[in-house]
Amino acid sequence: MAPEPFLKIKIQIYCGDEIAMGPGKADLLDAIMREGSISAAGRALGMSYRRTWLLVDAVNRCWDLPLVETAAGGSHGGGARVTELGKSVLAQYRAMQVAARELEHGEAWAALRPALRALPKAAQRDG
Amino acid sequence: MAPEPFLKIKIQIYCGDEIAMGPGKADLLDAIMREGSISAAGRALGMSYRRTWLLVDAVNRCWDLPLVETAAGGSHGGGARVTELGKSVLAQYRAMQVAARELEHGEAWAALRPALRALPKAAQRDG
Repeated sequence: MAPEPFLKIKIQIYCGDEIAMGPGKADLLDAIMREGSISAAGRALGMSYRRTWLLVDAVNRCWDLPLVETAAGGSHGGGARVTELGKSVLAQYRAMQVAARELEHGEAWAALRPALRALPKAAQRDG
Repeated sequence: MAPEPFLKIKIQIYCGDEIAMGPGKADLLDAIMREGSISAAGRALGMSYRRTWLLVDAVNRCWDLPLVETAAGGSHGGGARVTELGKSVLAQYRAMQVAARELEHGEAWAALRPALRALPKAAQRDG
């Protein structure tokens, strides 16, 4: 079966040059809520501990209050939890994603869709 | 004056693994309409001729009919024009961008905005 063409809509919230919230960071907050620690959340998402920690740090620096709090126990120990602000930011971000997906039911996409191929034609040879 | 936090919304139309339309390709169609050739459009956007040509080729392979037509005159010669389908696709894509920007006036952004810092706090030293 041929795949369907699709719309991808990426929402990023910028704070200076830093991304305060985006698809990867939202998934990370979800994973921390599920897993209860930054290291377990990173493992679940296939990221290094260092990268996971840098994402958490970036998020926490962008908002008035931290979105993720770590328990005592050294840099790799202890658990982590998503704060009330974190849960609220995540919910609003997910709401924006849902609202953006309304474009899939809009006139523009309905107009474009019939002219789109399911798969691209073969590439031309580079002259 | 401190910069303002902002929402960035990126819309991409996929055809298999290829991007049939996105922000860069839309800007390229605009530039081809303005400049009248692929090479001049690429120069105006600061892209190599090769990269510009590859983007045009990818776009043209994703739709039932080409969005960009080149005149005879060899690979670097002749002009290029955006077809009727290309103009229509571009207009619908821009309409989707405008619709997505409505999120900036939505409840979720209004709720998030006050908790966002204008600039991130300084990064913590990596432990």
